[in-house]
Amino acid sequence: MPEGLIYLDGNSLGPLPKTVPPRMADAVSRQWGNSLVKGWNEAGWFKLPSVVAAQLEPLIGAEPGSVAVGDSTSINLFKVLSAALKMSGSRRRILSDSGNFPSDLYIAEGLVSLVGSGFHLMALPSDKVEAAIGADVAVVMLTEVDYRTGQRRNMRSVTQAAHAAGALVIWDLSHSAGALPVRLADCNADFAVGCGYKFLNGGPGAPAFLYVAPRHAESLVPTLSGWMGHSAPFAFESSYRPASGIEKMQAGTPPILSLIAFSTALELFKDLDLEALHARSLQLGDLFIAEMARRCPYLELATPRDHRLRGSQVSFRHANGYEVMQALIARDVIGDFRSPDIIRFGITPLYISHDDIIRASATLEQILRDRLWDTDTYRVRAAVT
Amino acid sequence: MPEGLIYLDGNSLGPLPKTVPPRMADAVSRQWGNSLVKGWNEAGWFKLPSVVAAQLEPLIGAEPGSVAVGDSTSINLFKVLSAALKMSGSRRRILSDSGNFPSDLYIAEGLVSLVGSGFHLMALPSDKVEAAIGADVAVVMLTEVDYRTGQRRNMRSVTQAAHAAGALVIWDLSHSAGALPVRLADCNADFAVGCGYKFLNGGPGAPAFLYVAPRHAESLVPTLSGWMGHSAPFAFESSYRPASGIEKMQAGTPPILSLIAFSTALELFKDLDLEALHARSLQLGDLFIAEMARRCPYLELATPRDHRLRGSQVSFRHANGYEVMQALIARDVIGDFRSPDIIRFGITPLYISHDDIIRASATLEQILRDRLWDTDTYRVRAAVT
Repeated sequence: MPEGLIYLDGNSLGPLPKTVPPRMADAVSRQWGNSLVKGWNEAGWFKLPSVVAAQLEPLIGAEPGSVAVGDSTSINLFKVLSAALKMSGSRRRILSDSGNFPSDLYIAEGLVSLVGSGFHLMALPSDKVEAAIGADVAVVMLTEVDYRTGQRRNMRSVTQAAHAAGALVIWDLSHSAGALPVRLADCNADFAVGCGYKFLNGGPGAPAFLYVAPRHAESLVPTLSGWMGHSAPFAFESSYRPASGIEKMQAGTPPILSLIAFSTALELFKDLDLEALHARSLQLGDLFIAEMARRCPYLELATPRDHRLRGSQVSFRHANGYEVMQALIARDVIGDFRSPDIIRFGITPLYISHDDIIRASATLEQILRDRLWDTDTYRVRAAVT
Repeated sequence: MPEGLIYLDGNSLGPLPKTVPPRMADAVSRQWGNSLVKGWNEAGWFKLPSVVAAQLEPLIGAEPGSVAVGDSTSINLFKVLSAALKMSGSRRRILSDSGNFPSDLYIAEGLVSLVGSGFHLMALPSDKVEAAIGADVAVVMLTEVDYRTGQRRNMRSVTQAAHAAGALVIWDLSHSAGALPVRLADCNADFAVGCGYKFLNGGPGAPAFLYVAPRHAESLVPTLSGWMGHSAPFAFESSYRPASGIEKMQAGTPPILSLIAFSTALELFKDLDLEALHARSLQLGDLFIAEMARRCPYLELATPRDHRLRGSQVSFRHANGYEVMQALIARDVIGDFRSPDIIRFGITPLYISHDDIIRASATLEQILRDRLWDTDTYRVRAAVT
C-alpha cells in the first residue's frame, strides 16, 4: 500500500497483492513469450477458469463444481437470469430492489426486452421487496450487501421465502465475496454472480464468477453458448453440445492475463478464516461509527448498526457527499461517493488497522467541521474534467 | 521469439511484442499498485476500451466511433446478432456456413433458442451459402477468412448480394484483422466482430471487438445492456439509457490488464501498411505452397492458390494431420491441427522470414517422407494426456 494512504475503497477496487507483480511478469514473459500457443497446455491456461472457480468455491460456501469463472458480472447475470427464466413455467415476473446495483437491473431489462412473452422486471424499494414475493414471481434477483448503504440481506430467509412462493433466487455477491463468509449451499441458493475486483483483490476489471446450484445444473442449457462451454471444444462440432459440468457456463475464450492476476490474489484467501475476518471488520466498522458519532453527531449514518444487517462497509449521507469525498481523497483517505448523497468506506482488516480508522475519522471530522471541501473546490472541479 | 522456433501459429495466438512486458509491469505495479481506484481516471482505464477501439478502426477500415472493444468474440457476436434480429422485420432465418468457426454457430443457436418466434439458423456448406441468400434471410453471418482452409470470402460482393436480397450481414474478422486490409466501411458491412489474440498479438484471451455501421448505431438498443454502456454509468440511474455513441455496446467492467496488453500490441500496427504486409504474406504463402508441391507433391493443399481467395494462412490436408503436427511441434515448427484432417500455418511477415518457410518446408518434408510422426507417437500421446 502506498505510504501514508488510508485505503477504504477495497469495495470498489481491491489493492495489489505483493505476489501479483512477479506472477504477471512470469505470465507475460515466460508463458506467453516462450510457450506461445503451447501455454494453453503447458501453463495451464485451459484449466485456469476451473482452477479459479475451485479457489472461489470455499469462499462462498459453494459445492465443488458449482462455480464458473470468466466474463463480467453483468454477462454472468445474463447467463443465470436467462437460465432461470427458462425454468419459470407460467411465471413472468423478475422481482428486484430498485436500489440494486443498476447494471443488474439494466441486464434484466435487456433480457426481458429480447425475450418478450410477458416477462417483466419489477423493481421495488428495498424494504418492499420481500413482501412482494408472490405466486407471479419467477425470479427474485437481489444483492446480498447493498452497494450504497452496506446493508446486508438475510440470504437464508429470503431464499426460503422465495422457494416457499415457488420462485427462484439469484444473489449478487459482489460486495460479499472475500469480505464475509457467504453460504450459498447452506442457504439453498439457486444462482449467484459476483465480482472479482472488489474484496477479492483480483485486479481492475478482473473476471467475474457465477454459481449454479447442482440441482439445477444438469438440465441447464446455456443461452450464451460459446465454444469454451462445449463438451468438446476442439472437436469443432457444428452443433452446440453443452459440457456436462459447470464448464458449460463458460462462453468465449477468457482473458488469461487478467485471470492469472485474479488466481494469484485468491491464493491469499486460501487459509483465511472469513468468519474471523468479518468479525474484525465489524469491530472496525463499530469504531468508525462510534468515532463519527462522537466527532460529528449530525452526520447521518446510512449503514445499519446491527451486525446481522451489515456487510463490510460503512456509509454516511451528506448533501455535499461528492465534494466531501474529493476532499478526503485529496488528504489520502480513499473512499468513494455514490449518487445521490452517499460516502462509503469499505473496511477490511486485511490492510486496514485501528489507527487507520482513527485517522480517517479525524480527517473526515476536520473536513466537515471546517467545511474544507469548499476550499478544495477548484482542485476538485479540475480533477473531474 | 524463442531461439530456433519457427512460429506459424499467429492465427491461433500471436507472439508477445517486446513492448508489452514493461508496460504490463507498469500497469500492475504503478497503475494498480499505486493509483488503486484512482487508476480509472489517472491511468485512463475508463477510456481504455475507446482508445483500443480507435486503434483498431483504421486496421479494419471502420469509421471513427464505430468499434467497441471488450468481452469475447462469442459475446460480441451475441450482441450484434441480437441487434440484427431486432431489425429483421418478418424475416426469421440466420444463414451461415456449416464450416464457420463453431462458436459462431453455437452462439446463434443459443440466441434463437432464447428468442423463439420462429428464428432459426441455417448453416450450409461453404459453397452453397451465397446462392441461398433469399427473401427469407434476416442475417447472413460469415467469417471472412475460414479458420480451417484459410479461404477468403469476397466481403464486398457477399455484402452486396445480401443487401440486394434485403438481408443484413455480420462478418467475423478473427482471421483477417491485423493480417490483411479489411474494408468494412467500403464494403458497406452492417456488423462485424473479431478476435484480439490472433494476428493482432493482443495476448492470450485478449478482449475482442465489434463493429456497428454508423447507419445502424443510433437506433440500436443493446440486449447486453450493462452499466458501462449506459449514458451516465456513474449517475446510477435505475433504468437503462444507452450511451449515444458506440460505447453503448460495452456491457460490464472490462478486464483492464488484458486490455493494456492488447493496446500495447496494437501500437505496433500504427503505421503499418497492411496492404504491403498482406502482399508479402501471400508471397511467403506462395513459397510454402511451391516448396511443398516440389517436395511432397502428394500432399493435398486445402488453401486456394488464387491470392484473391486467400487470407494469411496456408493449410494442407493429411489423414494423420494430428500426428504430423505434433511431430512438427516437437521439431520447433509450430502450426496447429484442426479436426478432421487440417494442418494449418499462419503466415505473417512481421516475424516470419523466407528462411523460416524453407526450414519449415524441409522439416515437414522429412516428417512426411520418413513417417517420423510414427516415431513420435509415444511422446505425442503422453503430451496429450
